[in-house]
Amino acid sequence: MTETTIAINEVWLIFAAVLVMFMQAGFALVEAGFTQAKNAGNIIMKNVMDFSVGGLTYWAFGFALAYGGSTLGGLVAYGDVFFFDDTARASEWFFQVVFAATAATIISGAVAGRVKFTSYLLYTPFITGLIYPIVTHWVWGGGWLSEIGFFDFAGSGVVHMLGGVAALAAVTVVGPRIGKYDSDGKPQAMPGHSLTLGALGVFILWFGWYGFNAGSTLAAVGQNVAHPVVTTTLAAGAGAVGAMFTAWAVTGKPDVGYTINGVLAGLVAITAGTASIGFGLSILTGLIGGAIMVGSVIALERFGVDDPVGAISVHGTSGLWGLIAVALFSADASLPTQLLGAGAIALWAFTTSWIVFKLIDRTVGMRVSREEELIGLDMSEHGNDAYPEFVFQHEVVDLKEIVGDSVLSQPAAEEKSALSA
Amino acid sequence: MTETTIAINEVWLIFAAVLVMFMQAGFALVEAGFTQAKNAGNIIMKNVMDFSVGGLTYWAFGFALAYGGSTLGGLVAYGDVFFFDDTARASEWFFQVVFAATAATIISGAVAGRVKFTSYLLYTPFITGLIYPIVTHWVWGGGWLSEIGFFDFAGSGVVHMLGGVAALAAVTVVGPRIGKYDSDGKPQAMPGHSLTLGALGVFILWFGWYGFNAGSTLAAVGQNVAHPVVTTTLAAGAGAVGAMFTAWAVTGKPDVGYTINGVLAGLVAITAGTASIGFGLSILTGLIGGAIMVGSVIALERFGVDDPVGAISVHGTSGLWGLIAVALFSADASLPTQLLGAGAIALWAFTTSWIVFKLIDRTVGMRVSREEELIGLDMSEHGNDAYPEFVFQHEVVDLKEIVGDSVLSQPAAEEKSALSA
Amino acid sequence: MTETTIAINEVWLIFAAVLVMFMQAGFALVEAGFTQAKNAGNIIMKNVMDFSVGGLTYWAFGFALAYGGSTLGGLVAYGDVFFFDDTARASEWFFQVVFAATAATIISGAVAGRVKFTSYLLYTPFITGLIYPIVTHWVWGGGWLSEIGFFDFAGSGVVHMLGGVAALAAVTVVGPRIGKYDSDGKPQAMPGHSLTLGALGVFILWFGWYGFNAGSTLAAVGQNVAHPVVTTTLAAGAGAVGAMFTAWAVTGKPDVGYTINGVLAGLVAITAGTASIGFGLSILTGLIGGAIMVGSVIALERFGVDDPVGAISVHGTSGLWGLIAVALFSADASLPTQLLGAGAIALWAFTTSWIVFKLIDRTVGMRVSREEELIGLDMSEHGNDAYPEFVFQHEVVDLKEIVGDSVLSQPAAEEKSALSA
Repeated sequence: MTETTIAINEVWLIFAAVLVMFMQAGFALVEAGFTQAKNAGNIIMKNVMDFSVGGLTYWAFGFALAYGGSTLGGLVAYGDVFFFDDTARASEWFFQVVFAATAATIISGAVAGRVKFTSYLLYTPFITGLIYPIVTHWVWGGGWLSEIGFFDFAGSGVVHMLGGVAALAAVTVVGPRIGKYDSDGKPQAMPGHSLTLGALGVFILWFGWYGFNAGSTLAAVGQNVAHPVVTTTLAAGAGAVGAMFTAWAVTGKPDVGYTINGVLAGLVAITAGTASIGFGLSILTGLIGGAIMVGSVIALERFGVDDPVGAISVHGTSGLWGLIAVALFSADASLPTQLLGAGAIALWAFTTSWIVFKLIDRTVGMRVSREEELIGLDMSEHGNDAYPEFVFQHEVVDLKEIVGDSVLSQPAAEEKSALSA
Repeated sequence: MTETTIAINEVWLIFAAVLVMFMQAGFALVEAGFTQAKNAGNIIMKNVMDFSVGGLTYWAFGFALAYGGSTLGGLVAYGDVFFFDDTARASEWFFQVVFAATAATIISGAVAGRVKFTSYLLYTPFITGLIYPIVTHWVWGGGWLSEIGFFDFAGSGVVHMLGGVAALAAVTVVGPRIGKYDSDGKPQAMPGHSLTLGALGVFILWFGWYGFNAGSTLAAVGQNVAHPVVTTTLAAGAGAVGAMFTAWAVTGKPDVGYTINGVLAGLVAITAGTASIGFGLSILTGLIGGAIMVGSVIALERFGVDDPVGAISVHGTSGLWGLIAVALFSADASLPTQLLGAGAIALWAFTTSWIVFKLIDRTVGMRVSREEELIGLDMSEHGNDAYPEFVFQHEVVDLKEIVGDSVLSQPAAEEKSALSA
Repeated sequence: MTETTIAINEVWLIFAAVLVMFMQAGFALVEAGFTQAKNAGNIIMKNVMDFSVGGLTYWAFGFALAYGGSTLGGLVAYGDVFFFDDTARASEWFFQVVFAATAATIISGAVAGRVKFTSYLLYTPFITGLIYPIVTHWVWGGGWLSEIGFFDFAGSGVVHMLGGVAALAAVTVVGPRIGKYDSDGKPQAMPGHSLTLGALGVFILWFGWYGFNAGSTLAAVGQNVAHPVVTTTLAAGAGAVGAMFTAWAVTGKPDVGYTINGVLAGLVAITAGTASIGFGLSILTGLIGGAIMVGSVIALERFGVDDPVGAISVHGTSGLWGLIAVALFSADASLPTQLLGAGAIALWAFTTSWIVFKLIDRTVGMRVSREEELIGLDMSEHGNDAYPEFVFQHEVVDLKEIVGDSVLSQPAAEEKSALSA
């Protein structure tokens, strides 16, 4: 390769990886905005630590286990880069580490509001350093799944379904939040504290996803880097449309949360086939991705799985659909191979992460105490208050008892006159 | 072209288009931050749907009407790409679709707080699929305006003035918000709910504008891609300065809202001449753009045009000035041609969008009911509450009546002691 | 150079500079989020004006004093570009102006909540147009510090330590905020109004820093552009870890504010040696950068230096450490030269900015009145309210006196039952 070709490819890969890195901000905002204010600082800490500790772990051994020089029977890589210091592979490492951080960060949303910060610090290196790297070796590092023809261009399965399944394992171990189910087991709404921050997070993720999908060409010269940006755009839009109309049909309203999660579901769904599915079929891929995400959220909630931000459905369910879609809508893969690969990844991700969570649970404990959960993790775990100057509804609850129950729930004067007009 | 040249140009165009795509987040935040909390979720939905539905429409026929292989007398394009599936033009489509979404999204701010969500879903495809593509064919697709020498490098007129004029048509049809004018017709201040979110939106738009302006070179090799980034920087800064001092002179204070809208006005103004106006004159272009935006906002408000975020002035008025500036400050265009083009675009945009809005108004209705508007579109249209945990001023109005009117409006203890000191 | 090489280098430099430009949004959010709501609009105005006025100043003479064609004994440049209009150097100017704006914006956080807006408008051009450009001439423009072998690849000293030292000079002149120290001189906590906005700011800065560090190669062809992105990632993560554990040891909790400031401290620390320090040692550089930042914040607070966002410690202290680290951990510089250069930059920055602040203080006055400070700069300086719809704690203080002191501080009903369970 000429110096010029090397430079273009480096610029492309760094551009793409920087966009993917910024997705960490998107995840932090989606997770914080969709959950309660008393846990916002804790969510942020988990997202900062995902990438911070995850980066160090991936430098120490994650990258080596995925892309080291030798392979142990297609199961795991090893050799020559155990403490990564190979400047010639620097951009490659950077592109891979931001993917590893994405896989890890998916879990923090699902377990929001009830997991100990120290336990989180203990398990996140297992995801970025061990569980995720081994699957990438299978699929992208020349391992056994790539050998049998399993295809996942940018990671519907390798990154998103893996993260979603690990999140399911985590929720299975820690259980639902206090108040999520009433005494009859009926799910209760626990709306997030800021739709605007959540929506900004979704926009940031959409923005970053262009790096995620188009950057997975790994080079610009001689590659069709533009096909993925079109399918990414169309599938995201179709995902929003699919989720909105599904939610509209089910709940009677075009719900904001479902719709913006639909963007993410559409993006997750197209990720596996972003470079090979045609434009028209990419719309169908996103549409179905958005619709089944809504169904999955409702079903999981009924089965007692409390996932505050819908991470398991967005990443797990739509990720699985993405692996199927690439078989149905492109010539890159066959359905049986895709299902086999999906099963292998899901089994690996669930089992290994469940063991890690259980081990932590039996030793230091995964979950905070009831008191800490009710007070909020910001104060109990970090001694912080994310919004110390604002007055919150729970702070005026008792006030109602004193000055009359209807005072604070009544519409404002202006509204009242309108309603009586 | 060599493979290397193709790759550089693709990387450049995708980089620029991704920045422009992120402007959707900027518009969502500016519009949400500058309006009331009870409509924040609705604003977000409109911005998400602009790009989602807009992208699908632009894929289906918008791009073909603008850049299809054949032209119908320079008025509209057609042919070969009606359901777009031409991977060789993928980056071109992507760069154009994010511009189409920008034009559409300008309207949502002007009609914030009072337009039905279903009506919004009905009219937005007309903007991205029909009204906007035809103008782009006139100017950038080899149509009649380009033939007579009309010049608009990155879209002061084609994108921004068009969006601003369509926004004016929309406001003409829907009228002002309840409470915007008192019984004597005097305009009342209705400040937005979050200056910080609004300002973040402005920074995101500024960031994305580098893609908007410099990316309009459409290629990197053999192009002066750096001239536009300098004029964009200087005009944005001068726009802020121009708006700030104008507002300071008029209102007595350096108002935050006017100043940050001044950034946008400066950016809109330089967009037409970003590649050809010299650096010193780009400052003048931005300075005037910012100043006239303030005058336009005040004038429109007095004429009964309720534009909550100033979109008509920022995009319409400063966009018109941008078309004039390129004639005055560069050799690329003559003033009569620019004025003729501006008139044609404005006439087309106003007439066609007014017809669409009127048709929707006569059938499903453009505006929500009085009750829905007062309760807020988040609750009435979507069943959502953007900030369910926070206590709002309107919720404590009645409390004052009970515990004494002065209680909540008094300065805090700390402040009182200072004021009496 | 071929047209292709030129194009790649231009794309790279513009990509990097646009990322650095976006850091303005990051600084605005960090400073707003970490301070009180009543000053949020003012902070934003200062950040917008930094870049707006700064850009105009840097166009008028800042760039010429740093990189003009001739040098005056290695002390200051001059000639040929005094009112910059050299389109061939456009991308170079753009990359430099965003750095100049970064140096200037560091100060606004340290003096948050008490400095007159007009005074701010007066001093910021001195930073971007005079104080900063002269130092860049010394180090990056072929001046005397570069001649003696001082090394600062991307600006730990030239940008960050300079900004931090100027911030210290500013705080020395204006003094602490009212309420920061009690009558015994004991520092009081004044927590910021939004951890989520502050954290988003940190993520944006981290994102932009890839442009800051890797873009300082100034070209892509023949350069190792990827080494800096790896050291930047590792040092940022290590900075977070170093700050978190230090704060944990000192305060007993993993504090959110310290940890996310630790990301910034790690980034500042690696900036000087980002291209030459090895990956393993970059972790050590960031780790120490994060840890000493925490110590510096605590020490400065005890010495009566009220820096609401920790800017002096993050940029000044960790910037100094970055200059030392490059001598200890790479072959690019010797310790005595680095210390000499650090001393020269600090002396210049402190003396010149102190003179500017003192001159302004003696004439128009640097600080707002006691009344204005207590009411907040948003209302007193700009006539704005950043969050007019939300109810704030200070607004309900008197309510407690009427309806009983314990009403609003009691835990909510749900929490109470849990606590008694």
